[in-house]
Amino acid sequence: MSTPEQQTQHEKLMLHALSLASRGPITGGNPQVGCVLVDAAGEIVAEGWHRGAGTPHAEVDALTKLTASKLGGAATGQSAAGLTAIVTLEPCNHQGRTGPCSEALIAAGVTRVVYAVSDPGKRSGGGSERLRDAGVEVIGGIAAAEAEEFLHSWLSATRLQRPHVTVKWASSLDGRSAAADGTSQWITGTAARQHVHEQRARADAIVVGTGTVLADDPSLTARGDGGELLERQPQPVVLGRREIPVGAQLRHHPAQLRQFDGSDLNAALAELFEAGIRRIFVEGGPTIASAFITAGLADELLIYLAPKLLGGPKVALSELGVSTIAEAKDLSITELRPLGNDVLIVARPATGAPFAQSATGTVVATPATETGA
Amino acid sequence: MSTPEQQTQHEKLMLHALSLASRGPITGGNPQVGCVLVDAAGEIVAEGWHRGAGTPHAEVDALTKLTASKLGGAATGQSAAGLTAIVTLEPCNHQGRTGPCSEALIAAGVTRVVYAVSDPGKRSGGGSERLRDAGVEVIGGIAAAEAEEFLHSWLSATRLQRPHVTVKWASSLDGRSAAADGTSQWITGTAARQHVHEQRARADAIVVGTGTVLADDPSLTARGDGGELLERQPQPVVLGRREIPVGAQLRHHPAQLRQFDGSDLNAALAELFEAGIRRIFVEGGPTIASAFITAGLADELLIYLAPKLLGGPKVALSELGVSTIAEAKDLSITELRPLGNDVLIVARPATGAPFAQSATGTVVATPATETGA
Ligand SMILES: NC(=O)c1ccc[n+]([C@@H]2O[C@H](COP(=O)([O-])OP(=O)(O)OC[C@H]3O[C@@H](n4cnc5c(N)ncnc54)[C@H](OP(=O)(O)O)[C@@H]3O)[C@@H](O)[C@H]2O)c1
Ligand SMILES: NC(=O)c1ccc[n+]([C@@H]2O[C@H](COP(=O)([O-])OP(=O)(O)OC[C@H]3O[C@@H](n4cnc5c(N)ncnc54)[C@H](OP(=O)(O)O)[C@@H]3O)[C@@H](O)[C@H]2O)c1
Repeated sequence: MSTPEQQTQHEKLMLHALSLASRGPITGGNPQVGCVLVDAAGEIVAEGWHRGAGTPHAEVDALTKLTASKLGGAATGQSAAGLTAIVTLEPCNHQGRTGPCSEALIAAGVTRVVYAVSDPGKRSGGGSERLRDAGVEVIGGIAAAEAEEFLHSWLSATRLQRPHVTVKWASSLDGRSAAADGTSQWITGTAARQHVHEQRARADAIVVGTGTVLADDPSLTARGDGGELLERQPQPVVLGRREIPVGAQLRHHPAQLRQFDGSDLNAALAELFEAGIRRIFVEGGPTIASAFITAGLADELLIYLAPKLLGGPKVALSELGVSTIAEAKDLSITELRPLGNDVLIVARPATGAPFAQSATGTVVATPATETGA
Repeated sequence: MSTPEQQTQHEKLMLHALSLASRGPITGGNPQVGCVLVDAAGEIVAEGWHRGAGTPHAEVDALTKLTASKLGGAATGQSAAGLTAIVTLEPCNHQGRTGPCSEALIAAGVTRVVYAVSDPGKRSGGGSERLRDAGVEVIGGIAAAEAEEFLHSWLSATRLQRPHVTVKWASSLDGRSAAADGTSQWITGTAARQHVHEQRARADAIVVGTGTVLADDPSLTARGDGGELLERQPQPVVLGRREIPVGAQLRHHPAQLRQFDGSDLNAALAELFEAGIRRIFVEGGPTIASAFITAGLADELLIYLAPKLLGGPKVALSELGVSTIAEAKDLSITELRPLGNDVLIVARPATGAPFAQSATGTVVATPATETGA
């Protein structure tokens, strides 16, 4: 049981732990996690965060700093006795490349563990049970909404066991992605295009259809303001049966190119997930974007609207299987703002909408967040 | 010549005069005009505004109040000697249902006239020349940008000698105005629909095509929150050759119904202008909206985007005569905001864009605003 004062303090510390978490890489199979260790007076005595697969988890990172800074050589034994660990994700209970965090916390003698969201991982979950069994007080669900939002794409991927899918398109205000003759460069301005590059760098893979490869010969690299390659390069993935031309720019992409025939999107996603890919950025074209949306596989939409009208046949989305207005794919807009001269709209399937379907066609129930222990 | 201090003071007073102007009706053939009379110390001694066709102009309204309040019976003679008239629009020089304001100001003995924008009217213009000839100091272009914006639709109508045209549509984020089976009620939410009603009430006429009349049987009345008829009802105008059914709701509209075949939009607009109509609100459907845009006759666009995706064939705009991206109809967005769950975008043809064409196909040069005398 925690007092209201304690709860407020825990929430404040959790937001700090989230800011630590954000220092880690968003890409890759592992979640961004932050951890602070606080003493009985509520003072932070160590901070930690996860720096990506193969490196120590946030809890262990914090414990290591504690040992190094506060206790000198006394690294073994109950170095964290009396301390509370505030950690953004339920400590894992899984022996991976590193040992389970629940064991490390128990071994260090931590008195209390406060976390924000449960670990939905099949193998990694169950840490709080293990901790409680060892006599550690466990409080879950602190600043859960903030942490859910922060970990949104990772949680979604882990829960659905397929990559989180962002579908992006750029169109005129009347929903066209190109003029009648197919020309589309540039519909949007430089600020929007730079924003796209930043989003690419946050994904593990960029997905396009063969139609886009053949029409545009895109390089699909993530580039900075000056056109330089960004450090992080997502893997390019092409969907479709047609062959990627020998001279295609994509063949020179720094990351390895993959191709799927695209006839089974769920199978392609499953294979990508298996390969450690957690976030994909679907860049089009209209046929591929529409296929993901129709299949209920678009978790987030990134829409760039240019202050232009084009009319004509080149619509940014084609068929979505909506025959009457009641079947419209309802969205909830999470961001709306000018971006240079363009408009950025970020949206997600509205909760409970038929659109919010999992790969198997059933409505995804977002697990209720825990509200304290 | 005015000093910088005077100019600042004039600007402040002009903004006040604009707020007076806004008390008058926006609809009808006459502009909204406000006027304040100030003494040598800069104190406001009288305020006036125009209340619509047939009523005194703002300058005369202010002079009348001055006479009544300050000078008792001395209504004749130089009642305004030494005063400055701050008026939002260049005083008219035209004998209409009321006498020319320039003459009234001269007769009242006003020393100086400060105005914001020139009167582009063929018959009403020339007031400042008349005033100067009579020895009155005249300063134009004060707070011109604000006044231009405030009078935007009236100035546009007067300059182009055709009604100012607002084209409205509601669509999903992917630019569809209906689902595949034609159902479209309701794409947008109540806040957006109420906003449409308010815009209707600001127009002199609402224009729809026969396609919309036959498909939707709209009443096209301006209604309030509770469904009650608003006081101001714009005239319903139908474009197209097909007959309006005998039982159509439009036939019960409180204002008189007009129909044009629509083959010559310029001719229809000219006839409406002749009938005193200065603002039309084009409510669709897609064919009519596209026809106005293609003809370069859309001065303002009101786009309601619903957080939905529909896909399919029912695009909100059809053909715009744009064959390649360089011919895109460039817009400048003047408003972007959430409206209930929907998004409101207000846009105009970008200045200098090929889209910004007058009825005769030439680019409309917006007269440079005067910047002081
Ligand atoms: N404005 C934007 O944001 C944007 C972005 C990208 C592209 N574009 C434009 O879009 C145009 C290309 O459009 P597009 O629609 O032809 O290209 P696309 O969506 O990139 O590719 C379509 C192709 O993908 C393959 N495919 C793989 N899986 C599929 C599935 N599940 N369902 C359907 N098709 C699948 C099919 O090719 P196979 O026959 O090879 O199997 C299909 O023809 C270009 O003009 C490009 O400039 C615009
Ligand atoms: N989402 C929205 O904001 C919105 C608004 C209104 C309507 N709608 C939907 O739009 C659908 C109707 O679409 P629509 O495009 O058929 O209707 P429309 O634009 O209202 O009417 C088209 C008709 O207008 C006539 N017309 C007159 N002047 C014309 C010109 N210069 N160019 C071309 N046509 C001219 C033609 O009819 P004649 O053969 O009679 O000459 C033409 O068939 C309905 O389903 C309605 O629900 C949606």
